[in-house]
Amino acid sequence: MKIVVDAMGGDHAPAAPVEGAVLAAREYGVSVVLVGRPEVVEPELARHDTSGLDIQIEPASEVIEMDDQPATAVRAKPDSSVVVGIKLLKQGRADGFFSAGNTGGVLAAAIFHLGRIKGIKRPALSTIFPTVKGHCLLLDVGANAEVKPEFLVQFALMGHVYAERVLGIGRPRIGLVSNGEEETKGTPLVQAAHRMLKNISSLNFIGNVEGKDIPAGLADVVVTDGFTGNVIIKLAEGLGGLMKQIIREELSRDPLSMVGALLSKRAFDRVSARTDYSVYGGAPLLGVDGVVIIGHGRSNPVAVKNGVRVAKTAVEQRVVSTIREGWAAMSEQIAAAVST
Amino acid sequence: MKIVVDAMGGDHAPAAPVEGAVLAAREYGVSVVLVGRPEVVEPELARHDTSGLDIQIEPASEVIEMDDQPATAVRAKPDSSVVVGIKLLKQGRADGFFSAGNTGGVLAAAIFHLGRIKGIKRPALSTIFPTVKGHCLLLDVGANAEVKPEFLVQFALMGHVYAERVLGIGRPRIGLVSNGEEETKGTPLVQAAHRMLKNISSLNFIGNVEGKDIPAGLADVVVTDGFTGNVIIKLAEGLGGLMKQIIREELSRDPLSMVGALLSKRAFDRVSARTDYSVYGGAPLLGVDGVVIIGHGRSNPVAVKNGVRVAKTAVEQRVVSTIREGWAAMSEQIAAAVST
Repeated sequence: MKIVVDAMGGDHAPAAPVEGAVLAAREYGVSVVLVGRPEVVEPELARHDTSGLDIQIEPASEVIEMDDQPATAVRAKPDSSVVVGIKLLKQGRADGFFSAGNTGGVLAAAIFHLGRIKGIKRPALSTIFPTVKGHCLLLDVGANAEVKPEFLVQFALMGHVYAERVLGIGRPRIGLVSNGEEETKGTPLVQAAHRMLKNISSLNFIGNVEGKDIPAGLADVVVTDGFTGNVIIKLAEGLGGLMKQIIREELSRDPLSMVGALLSKRAFDRVSARTDYSVYGGAPLLGVDGVVIIGHGRSNPVAVKNGVRVAKTAVEQRVVSTIREGWAAMSEQIAAAVST
Repeated sequence: MKIVVDAMGGDHAPAAPVEGAVLAAREYGVSVVLVGRPEVVEPELARHDTSGLDIQIEPASEVIEMDDQPATAVRAKPDSSVVVGIKLLKQGRADGFFSAGNTGGVLAAAIFHLGRIKGIKRPALSTIFPTVKGHCLLLDVGANAEVKPEFLVQFALMGHVYAERVLGIGRPRIGLVSNGEEETKGTPLVQAAHRMLKNISSLNFIGNVEGKDIPAGLADVVVTDGFTGNVIIKLAEGLGGLMKQIIREELSRDPLSMVGALLSKRAFDRVSARTDYSVYGGAPLLGVDGVVIIGHGRSNPVAVKNGVRVAKTAVEQRVVSTIREGWAAMSEQIAAAVST
């Protein structure tokens, strides 16, 4: 099993991806290919004990920066770590790919160089979203601002496969984001997707979920278009920041509360840990013909390590071929549902 | 100035609306009409000192319950407090209307009995949303799951007028919800609305806002379709609950943190106050031909009192006629923007 790690991707590159790759190689026994500029990756790798580990460096002279325009960058930088890394997958020289770099760049490179899984119309970006009970998989969070009902159904299938195979959730509950629980709620597009989904017996479709139902953990897989999904994740990020700032301001406003805050520090550390993205490592780009995991830009070494683990599990659990087969089996049901 | 208060609307009706109406009549010197079942409203009102106040009761024998299907209920219950109250506005017997009841019911009754402001295609539900700097006005939050670009432009105009006239914000910054800052981001619909908005010189349009920009307070008026807006407010509600639960759980997990939490209680009370809806009283249903303010279902007497104040200000500030005139002046600019 060989996993490619984008050594140049993320706010803490190359230190964090290199250290995370070393940790992963040791803990999971996988081979790792670090893609990036040898002149920065080699010295970084030399700082770690890599005896007995299979870690190679694949040279790539360019970097897609966080603020690069994705589609342009992928064409303009053919020797970037992302493009070179994705091509290793395509060439069959590696089994999975992890990057904490420019999400749009990874998306564009994967669609362009790996292509889509047969039958899948549009790949979707997913993310792990915190809930009262733990977490759910939310998709699409930005790959497709505009969708058709069939795309949403495919997102549901892909989320189902990933949740079951990689997150280990038996018969994952699938929810469709809408502005009300009733089947009649939502745009005509959402209503059409709802009608299709409820006719697919292989999916555990629980119906519409409202905004409040997502953090409440009503669904394991939350399906929406990339416009709404993107607003959801960015709003959650913003609201988290707002809450933290308000709590910080108020705790420092009177002496007693300041003392209280110091005493409760351990509790607040646990709150941070529970809402920490790094344990999940990353979330998959689903629908492309290969295992591509995208980590948070702020990924630390542990997040990168976990990202490699997630990629490894996705490869072992045959996520890509399961999606392909699942769609083939499902498309007849879909056709029947559409025609009714 | 006469404001109608739906005495039967909200989780704490009739006690909260009746007490709120009494407080408002005394503090703001307005006349109040309490609409509802006389047999419950009269004894409730008798519990308060109303000497010198102009508070009347308008009988309505029916109630639109929180779980009633709005459009059906408005037709099936013509003698409900909401319908009777809205009709008082229509008949010119009152100047403004406040309800903490079934939002959809108020919306349906207002559209059906008051009608739209001339030129306004679709009324929009707004809400006051907390930000780092205070709050912003968010609309539409559920009246129109599907919109056209022109509707979004009208929402922007209506939000502008309300923010300036009632919230007292000079030259309010208008933001359009999208999945990226750039003009090219978003669905074709959002892109079209963006192009129209940036050509309207009377609006202070700052461009697209992402999910994280809303709580960050980048815009004073946040414009979106009713589907996305509904997901936003319900997600915020759900995430607030999630954060509270996680903090509560972790604070009670070790003795030191429990002590700390007790000491910081005043700070957390202030956090609650800052994120409290009741100071705003309610948010307007904009675009209908009358002042209609909808409060939170959990409205307490102070929230109702503030809701009456908001209605009074909206009447004094001629929000309805300003929207009508603003649209008339703007529609030429719009037509020009559309044709380019």
